[in-house]
Amino acid sequence: MNQDYFKNIDKIKFEGKDSDNPLAYKYYDASKIVMGKTLKDHFKFAMAYWHSMNDNGADPFGRLTNLYPWNKETDFMQQAKNRADAAFEFLQKMGFDYFCFHDIDLIQEGASLLETEKRVGQIAEYIKGKQKETGMKVLWGTANCFSNPVYMNGAITNPDFRVASRAAAQIKIAFDTSMELGAENYVFWGGREGYLSLLNTDMKRELDHLATFFNKMVEYGQKQGFNGNFFIEPKPAEPTKHQYDFDAATVVGFLNQNGLQDHFKLNIEVNHATLASHTFEHELQVSANAGMLGSIDANRGDNQNGWDTDQFSINLYETIEAMLVFLKSGGLQGGGINFDAKVRRNSTDLEDLFIAHIQGADTFARGLISAEYILTKTPYAKMLKERYESYDSGQGNSFENAKLSIEDLYKIGINQSEISHTSGKQELYESILANSF
Amino acid sequence: MNQDYFKNIDKIKFEGKDSDNPLAYKYYDASKIVMGKTLKDHFKFAMAYWHSMNDNGADPFGRLTNLYPWNKETDFMQQAKNRADAAFEFLQKMGFDYFCFHDIDLIQEGASLLETEKRVGQIAEYIKGKQKETGMKVLWGTANCFSNPVYMNGAITNPDFRVASRAAAQIKIAFDTSMELGAENYVFWGGREGYLSLLNTDMKRELDHLATFFNKMVEYGQKQGFNGNFFIEPKPAEPTKHQYDFDAATVVGFLNQNGLQDHFKLNIEVNHATLASHTFEHELQVSANAGMLGSIDANRGDNQNGWDTDQFSINLYETIEAMLVFLKSGGLQGGGINFDAKVRRNSTDLEDLFIAHIQGADTFARGLISAEYILTKTPYAKMLKERYESYDSGQGNSFENAKLSIEDLYKIGINQSEISHTSGKQELYESILANSF
Amino acid sequence: MNQDYFKNIDKIKFEGKDSDNPLAYKYYDASKIVMGKTLKDHFKFAMAYWHSMNDNGADPFGRLTNLYPWNKETDFMQQAKNRADAAFEFLQKMGFDYFCFHDIDLIQEGASLLETEKRVGQIAEYIKGKQKETGMKVLWGTANCFSNPVYMNGAITNPDFRVASRAAAQIKIAFDTSMELGAENYVFWGGREGYLSLLNTDMKRELDHLATFFNKMVEYGQKQGFNGNFFIEPKPAEPTKHQYDFDAATVVGFLNQNGLQDHFKLNIEVNHATLASHTFEHELQVSANAGMLGSIDANRGDNQNGWDTDQFSINLYETIEAMLVFLKSGGLQGGGINFDAKVRRNSTDLEDLFIAHIQGADTFARGLISAEYILTKTPYAKMLKERYESYDSGQGNSFENAKLSIEDLYKIGINQSEISHTSGKQELYESILANSF
Amino acid sequence: MNQDYFKNIDKIKFEGKDSDNPLAYKYYDASKIVMGKTLKDHFKFAMAYWHSMNDNGADPFGRLTNLYPWNKETDFMQQAKNRADAAFEFLQKMGFDYFCFHDIDLIQEGASLLETEKRVGQIAEYIKGKQKETGMKVLWGTANCFSNPVYMNGAITNPDFRVASRAAAQIKIAFDTSMELGAENYVFWGGREGYLSLLNTDMKRELDHLATFFNKMVEYGQKQGFNGNFFIEPKPAEPTKHQYDFDAATVVGFLNQNGLQDHFKLNIEVNHATLASHTFEHELQVSANAGMLGSIDANRGDNQNGWDTDQFSINLYETIEAMLVFLKSGGLQGGGINFDAKVRRNSTDLEDLFIAHIQGADTFARGLISAEYILTKTPYAKMLKERYESYDSGQGNSFENAKLSIEDLYKIGINQSEISHTSGKQELYESILANSF
Repeated sequence: MNQDYFKNIDKIKFEGKDSDNPLAYKYYDASKIVMGKTLKDHFKFAMAYWHSMNDNGADPFGRLTNLYPWNKETDFMQQAKNRADAAFEFLQKMGFDYFCFHDIDLIQEGASLLETEKRVGQIAEYIKGKQKETGMKVLWGTANCFSNPVYMNGAITNPDFRVASRAAAQIKIAFDTSMELGAENYVFWGGREGYLSLLNTDMKRELDHLATFFNKMVEYGQKQGFNGNFFIEPKPAEPTKHQYDFDAATVVGFLNQNGLQDHFKLNIEVNHATLASHTFEHELQVSANAGMLGSIDANRGDNQNGWDTDQFSINLYETIEAMLVFLKSGGLQGGGINFDAKVRRNSTDLEDLFIAHIQGADTFARGLISAEYILTKTPYAKMLKERYESYDSGQGNSFENAKLSIEDLYKIGINQSEISHTSGKQELYESILANSF
Repeated sequence: MNQDYFKNIDKIKFEGKDSDNPLAYKYYDASKIVMGKTLKDHFKFAMAYWHSMNDNGADPFGRLTNLYPWNKETDFMQQAKNRADAAFEFLQKMGFDYFCFHDIDLIQEGASLLETEKRVGQIAEYIKGKQKETGMKVLWGTANCFSNPVYMNGAITNPDFRVASRAAAQIKIAFDTSMELGAENYVFWGGREGYLSLLNTDMKRELDHLATFFNKMVEYGQKQGFNGNFFIEPKPAEPTKHQYDFDAATVVGFLNQNGLQDHFKLNIEVNHATLASHTFEHELQVSANAGMLGSIDANRGDNQNGWDTDQFSINLYETIEAMLVFLKSGGLQGGGINFDAKVRRNSTDLEDLFIAHIQGADTFARGLISAEYILTKTPYAKMLKERYESYDSGQGNSFENAKLSIEDLYKIGINQSEISHTSGKQELYESILANSF
Repeated sequence: MNQDYFKNIDKIKFEGKDSDNPLAYKYYDASKIVMGKTLKDHFKFAMAYWHSMNDNGADPFGRLTNLYPWNKETDFMQQAKNRADAAFEFLQKMGFDYFCFHDIDLIQEGASLLETEKRVGQIAEYIKGKQKETGMKVLWGTANCFSNPVYMNGAITNPDFRVASRAAAQIKIAFDTSMELGAENYVFWGGREGYLSLLNTDMKRELDHLATFFNKMVEYGQKQGFNGNFFIEPKPAEPTKHQYDFDAATVVGFLNQNGLQDHFKLNIEVNHATLASHTFEHELQVSANAGMLGSIDANRGDNQNGWDTDQFSINLYETIEAMLVFLKSGGLQGGGINFDAKVRRNSTDLEDLFIAHIQGADTFARGLISAEYILTKTPYAKMLKERYESYDSGQGNSFENAKLSIEDLYKIGINQSEISHTSGKQELYESILANSF
Repeated sequence: MNQDYFKNIDKIKFEGKDSDNPLAYKYYDASKIVMGKTLKDHFKFAMAYWHSMNDNGADPFGRLTNLYPWNKETDFMQQAKNRADAAFEFLQKMGFDYFCFHDIDLIQEGASLLETEKRVGQIAEYIKGKQKETGMKVLWGTANCFSNPVYMNGAITNPDFRVASRAAAQIKIAFDTSMELGAENYVFWGGREGYLSLLNTDMKRELDHLATFFNKMVEYGQKQGFNGNFFIEPKPAEPTKHQYDFDAATVVGFLNQNGLQDHFKLNIEVNHATLASHTFEHELQVSANAGMLGSIDANRGDNQNGWDTDQFSINLYETIEAMLVFLKSGGLQGGGINFDAKVRRNSTDLEDLFIAHIQGADTFARGLISAEYILTKTPYAKMLKERYESYDSGQGNSFENAKLSIEDLYKIGINQSEISHTSGKQELYESILANSF
């Protein structure tokens, strides 16, 4: 195996929290047991092919800054192989078992969809070979139906059926390729499914088209014997002004209304949550409430900037709150933690890629360890249970079980003598959180 | 009838757009026919009791600035009667037929809920008398389950059943009172239904309690012979950090998931839409898509401030886009346009109340007239229809009718030769909008 | 002259507000007199070379959608000439007299700065020839020190002096070229002058470098006999997280603190104002207060999106408020109205460029006409004067003239008997605005 | 001394990080030496009288939830004494030496300013007595010129001179009282100095009035022998839409332009920084750059809510970045760390006040310890120095010292051969930060 893109970097080891080696894990000890399960099994860490292998540092005001060595090759097939080599070398050095990809992350798009299909098929063969050698797995695959200008007015929700059918064909290819590579899940990210101006948009018709398509994909998946999950990844804005998959609640509602709830789960991205004016933990909880917490795209946004900055996770407060929901909900249904994050465009050393992923993995490890600590060593769980105990028995319980009419409730409520204040103890809860690491 | 709170102000007349009288309508000619219906019938303009009669100009940093003459009386019953007198005088002078209210807008809350019930019953009698005299109607009533400190941890979603039952009792009283006054609809505004910190919150349990309660209210309403609509009014934040009724899509999903969809519709507030990172027209359209566009709370927010500023509508661009959805959706289901807006706290002249409402009414009138113009005198409708015409027949239509499998779609899509770009013409649509007034 | 890029489009004419021709001015009658001056002279409308001639519709998630015919040529010099031809044809058809440019808008950047210098010199000759033929003028020129990856850590404020000196050299070339083309002004737009993370940044040292450079540019400009203005264009974020020229107040303070106030003015962009949590009119007023209102970059943002959307002006409310400041401040000092705006990336018809600019020009024309109306035909000016009249004479005037000590003020203030409330009449002011068009 | 409001709470002790006692310090060991100085001396922790003693939990949608025992007394003088007793008991139990206050925090405002003056004088005597007994000091005093409705149109910037003079008189009283109590500093918080709508505002005239007043206050302070600092506390919005003291850069510019720079420093509040789209550390650095970093109002905002939530500090990332600026700038000039934060309105236990302040103090202590670690035990300082070393000698140094003309810079810059990319290493810097605690 060709392992020389990251020559000066050895396999990343766990060295513990006192290490001052930027190229070592301080908290992510893959075999450490938390709540009865190894960190590795909890997380199923995955590399995002697009950011870590394809990203080039371009931004809306500037050209590429990072032409990675594996992308310098101009022959598209050789370039794709180089990129795959770099990807597998990176995964092995990080100690990750998974990656996620869009179809055209793997290889440059062709001039026609037919040509793209051919290319994707060829590189898939090559990657399959590397998977066999290394045991690396695909957490999920997806189709990029947003970069190609043909999708400027939408993909499946395009007002022009020709484009919608092209998108459908591309998605079929990406799905077939994902199955070929043993993908455990398949993601639909809304991309350009949304609108820029309601003036020129028939929102209902577009959403109905989307629902029809998803139902057909369910049928197709079943026919192909796909055992994994379909995921939808909510995002409120970007690239369109109004993305149809605004947030978890919107997506859950859409799935329920269209008979898709048994076949789909949610892939929650941190920065998409914050762009939708929610917290990460809120979106996880909404998904878990619906029994649809499928997977996580790990990153962080910048609260001062209004777009998707896709920075690596660093914030323990946010991560611990997320890991509390994660543990209380029994983890992810089929998915894992995919680092959908990119180094800053001026982080042009190859080691920066490693430092960033290490920090991301350490943040999740430390977060989960703290969450376990909170749940098992502090009064947290007891405090929370007691807060709701009036519903565990008596009239409260009857209400909870829908056994009280409005007249019953009136009779109980009207006779409440002065109800003394019960502190919400938010500062105490926060203090428990802040002192858990 | 005691008509002397607004002595120097006569009944507001329609004087046309060239009038320079700030106390005259320039666009709202109640009897003008637009799309086959009078403006009066389209809109059913309503005064919001809380803002126009009770508001006192207090803000988080300052005490009341507007102690309205009718509120100066210290005897609570006489004060309430004075306020009702002022309300009816105001309505008559504005030429509005409707008002909306919370229970404790009508009269000061008592020391206990029982005492409040008694007071509300008494003032309701007085108001009923005034309705008979004047023909004024109630667009909707609601309960204020957020001002009283007992609700600091929530009302129906309170972790303490005692408080939840008290809220239920209060809502029953408010609902009964609304029926007594002939309310055409009843609104649930989330108030403190939401959470401040997920750390101390069992979100799923709280939402289940809310759903149970709503189902019981449906039963109760049916038993009482209520013919109106129940409305939910989405809002993303304030007073709690995370309100459960975040936006229209969240509420529609919640209603569907809990079997409430046939009994509830949505009351969309402009400023709540913008606080949720949506446009007003977006929220109307989402409601209309679900067949649940019930009513409108008319106001505007301030894009530079992150809270509910509740200013009077002035923005024609926003209003015309809204009126396009309104007309295309067949208007509101049971509701009307309620001016849920307040004068600035330093607008302390009584005439300011009139100037503000006139501007609000004129904005809606002008907006509807422009929307009719766009739909009937410009190429707008034709342009929009043509944009989607590939779904009106042939393969596109088969797809729309769910007759194509993924394999079918693939066959069509893979053979698309180069698809030429079709301009979205957004600037042309916007130019039509901008030149419609 | 080669005039055939816009074959089907004739010179845009003023047809008045009842025209339904999307390719005609409805309000912008260049020769119309407003406040004693033609609209043409008030505005000095300019085309932004980058958006209208170079922009290609790429966004962070998608490749170019608009490869304009003049940019299809692959020979860089011929391409540049084609682009210039298109630019002049566009200007003549729009009836605009001005354009604005960055150095590398004119021609593709070379592999080295020396090569770029040569190219820019050559195309400048060509453009000069076209200017002579047509009378077209340059409102301002500037240097693009942000697209080239060499500037990824900043241009003049780069931590590496090599890059800073390269930026200085590029700016000298751009400035010389601007003078060569008779530019009336020269703009500094902060581009990558700012920082991504304070952790790796010495903010003070970077700002001192910037001030030193500007002072040297003042010296250089004087030596070259430059009679125009230097402008700084504030922007809060993008491309760096924290741009040093955050807003007008920040820039005015920086100029004053560094002895630059007599040589610089501000170029205010609408969307930069709104991204900084200000209104457009606020930024104009802050600039005018400092005697530094130089020029305007006309566009609009999207209040639901947190980045620079650079849409064409359409909002009369915003524009009228701006035009009130504009008229009250005596207009712009040396600058004009530059349409720093782009069509949406899915607006791919060439006519969309015209429709968008027409709407922009009409918005400013209509806004100025309304502002004149407000100032001359309504009670607005009188109301505003009276609001402050307590400072026009007596003790208020003594205070204004700094003749009262704190002890004096105390003696006056402590004896104020109850001060009755004076309404701010905001709704009345807004009603005057809303009824001015 | 009457010490019985917090009966069940003993003096808070430092117990170290392994303590699970919510009523103990885990990191704030007052006598611990960091960078050569005790934590106590670094911070000068202060209690904010208004939040901790007066706040009652009211919000824009709800009445008071926290009627503290010391405020239940209805006689205004006895109530004020009770409140002072509680304040001193709280300070002693927390181990804080300082408090900050507005005039009317100390005692209820009277019906007239004269009456208020009398009341404030009387309670000041009482407090002075308690200061003598306990050694407690005043970090700063200020005047509340925003709660009283007389200020609804502004205080010193009111369009009506009568109100401005009343504000001046009130400020003189507050300043005299502050001096009487030995205040080390005096703060001007903009309160209602700003505007709601530019339509009815003469911004320049209002700002000139403010500058005149500040200059008179400087004269007055000097005459009275005031040795402390005047502080201005920037805030972007709330209560007015546009506060004149938007952010640090705006205030520094204003001070410089009005000759006030030698007499004023800045008091930076965390949540005001974030509301202005800046980071806390940014605002500290801007102040430090100007030599004006005076004091800190410690709290945190909520990134999901657009108003001043004034929560207690908990975020180590934010605090460590702030403490890096703090240490590098040589600490605060005259000020200290004032906990301008409040418990949530549903945190109604008296112990919640303690838990919240403890967490705040621990966050700052832990943050400072981490900042010392970063500066002394990691490569951070060296990395940062090397990043700018091209300016430490040679041509870069000549540029820094303003010895190079534009022509000189051109000669250097034009000859730069390809400049290789230097990584900004942001992820490495962030990793150092994340692993410092």
